[in-house]
Amino acid sequence: MINIDLSNAIKEKDILSYQKKVNLINKMIIDKTGEGNDFLGWVDWPTNYPKDEVSNIVRVAHKIRKNYDVLLVIGIGGSYLGARSAIEALKGLRYKDDIEIIFFGQTFSGTYTKQVLDYLKDKRFAINVISKSGTTTESSIAFRLAKALLEKKVGKKEARKAIIATTDIEKGALLQLSTNEGYIKYVLPRDIGGRYSVFTPVGLFPMAVAGIDVLKFLEGAKKAQKEFANPDLKKNICYRYAVTRDFMYNHKKSVEMYVTYEPHMSQISEWLKQLFGESEGKNKLGLFPASATFSTDLHSLGQFVQDGTPLLFETILNVQKPLCDVKIPHDDKNLDGLNYLEGKTMAYVNDKAYKGTLSAHVNEGNVPCISINISEMNEANLGYLLYLFMRACAMSAYLLNINPFNQPGVEIYKKNMFHLLGKKGY
Amino acid sequence: MINIDLSNAIKEKDILSYQKKVNLINKMIIDKTGEGNDFLGWVDWPTNYPKDEVSNIVRVAHKIRKNYDVLLVIGIGGSYLGARSAIEALKGLRYKDDIEIIFFGQTFSGTYTKQVLDYLKDKRFAINVISKSGTTTESSIAFRLAKALLEKKVGKKEARKAIIATTDIEKGALLQLSTNEGYIKYVLPRDIGGRYSVFTPVGLFPMAVAGIDVLKFLEGAKKAQKEFANPDLKKNICYRYAVTRDFMYNHKKSVEMYVTYEPHMSQISEWLKQLFGESEGKNKLGLFPASATFSTDLHSLGQFVQDGTPLLFETILNVQKPLCDVKIPHDDKNLDGLNYLEGKTMAYVNDKAYKGTLSAHVNEGNVPCISINISEMNEANLGYLLYLFMRACAMSAYLLNINPFNQPGVEIYKKNMFHLLGKKGY
Repeated sequence: MINIDLSNAIKEKDILSYQKKVNLINKMIIDKTGEGNDFLGWVDWPTNYPKDEVSNIVRVAHKIRKNYDVLLVIGIGGSYLGARSAIEALKGLRYKDDIEIIFFGQTFSGTYTKQVLDYLKDKRFAINVISKSGTTTESSIAFRLAKALLEKKVGKKEARKAIIATTDIEKGALLQLSTNEGYIKYVLPRDIGGRYSVFTPVGLFPMAVAGIDVLKFLEGAKKAQKEFANPDLKKNICYRYAVTRDFMYNHKKSVEMYVTYEPHMSQISEWLKQLFGESEGKNKLGLFPASATFSTDLHSLGQFVQDGTPLLFETILNVQKPLCDVKIPHDDKNLDGLNYLEGKTMAYVNDKAYKGTLSAHVNEGNVPCISINISEMNEANLGYLLYLFMRACAMSAYLLNINPFNQPGVEIYKKNMFHLLGKKGY
Repeated sequence: MINIDLSNAIKEKDILSYQKKVNLINKMIIDKTGEGNDFLGWVDWPTNYPKDEVSNIVRVAHKIRKNYDVLLVIGIGGSYLGARSAIEALKGLRYKDDIEIIFFGQTFSGTYTKQVLDYLKDKRFAINVISKSGTTTESSIAFRLAKALLEKKVGKKEARKAIIATTDIEKGALLQLSTNEGYIKYVLPRDIGGRYSVFTPVGLFPMAVAGIDVLKFLEGAKKAQKEFANPDLKKNICYRYAVTRDFMYNHKKSVEMYVTYEPHMSQISEWLKQLFGESEGKNKLGLFPASATFSTDLHSLGQFVQDGTPLLFETILNVQKPLCDVKIPHDDKNLDGLNYLEGKTMAYVNDKAYKGTLSAHVNEGNVPCISINISEMNEANLGYLLYLFMRACAMSAYLLNINPFNQPGVEIYKKNMFHLLGKKGY
């Protein structure tokens, strides 16, 4: 179960004042009539996804999971953040498992790349390479290196069986290579952009290899899809959140800080930064997306949030039940004075930290706080949550009159870089 | 070697216009006459640090390194961020080593805590517990749990040999416990606050256990201390950086984004967020400190930086030589079109990504960019760099008329939390 408490951020009448605009935009999203409408494949995906492909993913993932020490997931941006966020959210940061998932090809760092390659030398590893074109520079370099290492270790024939490509259905370098070599292929749909792709094979395959039930994950998204089709702002928690963001933006807030009290949820904030930052950050507009992990960062950013420049509001992912827990033990001497917490769980203490902080930030700090209360992190809740954010993002961007589905600004540095690298045509 | 290029952010005459103010504040720092002057122990520390204690740290660390699988470092805020940043910066994220360093007690998360405890069950582990008082809630709970596990595993006698406490010299729960039990103790100096403590045993012991040469690290800081004593803005790169931050703040920038092109440098940005955020974020003032790791985050935040709300400037930690590197191999078929990079290193490509991005952000995006160019990450350069930031932070905060050394705002949530937890006196 997921609910959103907006009472520390906005008044009910201010939410409802958006109803007409929201009705129009919701119709635009469903009828696919707004800007960027050729990238709205994600809207109905939880209902319409190709069932055969997902069954195949589950089957192949199970084999990979059984037969390898490591799955190397090669991708960047939307081909990286969704799967990583989902796996960490559902498994934790230090879980024990039969297979290790390593993300690769998301950097030009020689340090990171070399250290991962060294680590792989004595591991049995498979590769899931994710790229629409197969020519994204970071992930292409990484794939060249990893493929060469794998072929050297196990030979070309065995390597072919251990490489799974997620790419375009019709064209591109990776599709061609995969066809030539006979890799298993999954489709990265043409009408779904990278940051909206977590429910496609981009997210599903690595998640399934990590032992996650992707069908339940899709079910959660489907539930969200159904609920949010009705734009009634008295009920639609997704659009209520979207209009609150817009209201904040129009009332002198310039930074949305995603907050979690669970370190293994922090990667979701990175996914959110791409989702909202890349969707809205255009035409010199948009909320700057930042993040913090409390209580850790109460000991670093807490002072600023409480008492610094009043530019931010918080969107808190408040998970009520952790994946696992531990009780605070008794100590005879009680020098640390903690016996008053004896027998209490960490979750109990964490909840009080959340409530105490919320009150301090809202009441003393005048920081608007949005609480997204999540009963527990499981596949269905995560699917629901990520779909909620995607749909809220489309609504928010359209409220700003911005196309949520393009990213024209990211081409400039690439052109400069290709020119400096001496790439043909630049 | 470290230099700072400010030419993409400010004009020389605007830097020099600060000279008089800078002279006064520098004198305040050296003479310890400003607000918070009882927390200026860090200024001369690289010259005056206790040589015997550091020799002892090196010796003990060497033994721990040889005899254990894991060092559990328990601390939060300033007792956590410095050591972690330094170790990652100097070793990378996936280095192979004789001993593993795990940071613990920086969260109330049951998930994280339980998973780490489970992991430790079949490891030989030592503990470095870091706390001025020994009653910080997060780290005290963690220490209770870890100590109980250790004593259960190896008995009380062996456990005593495996616990090292870094704490106050004169009083507090952790000091008392350490004395009772006969733990090895290191001193957390009274005139140095948490976020300025990386050069004290707080940072040095975990670093030394990780195999880092802490004497070279301190040498680097000493070099910086000497150089930055002279406030001449034509030469003093530390104060040149500090006044540029102030200039940005006074010219409608509200977010400083720390950027690195090496994932293993990202934790430094977390340390910087505490340093600057907690020092300056008072009286409704201060730059909001954010961070990004490029090129990874060019595929997420890049669009916003290039073309979103123009509220930020970048401070880039540009490491010119990675810790290790790899060359891009030849591929006969060249389907990915990368053969034009054949034989080039990742560092070469990363440098072009940096330069191409800098030009795109500065010229097309109108984003001011400060480049801190670091020839390579080694102990001396890191010591120099961290001291530079600490001193720049003191200068920046004093320029805002803010006491850089207190953090009154972090008490409010704690009071609320203790009240909710039913702690006596709240």
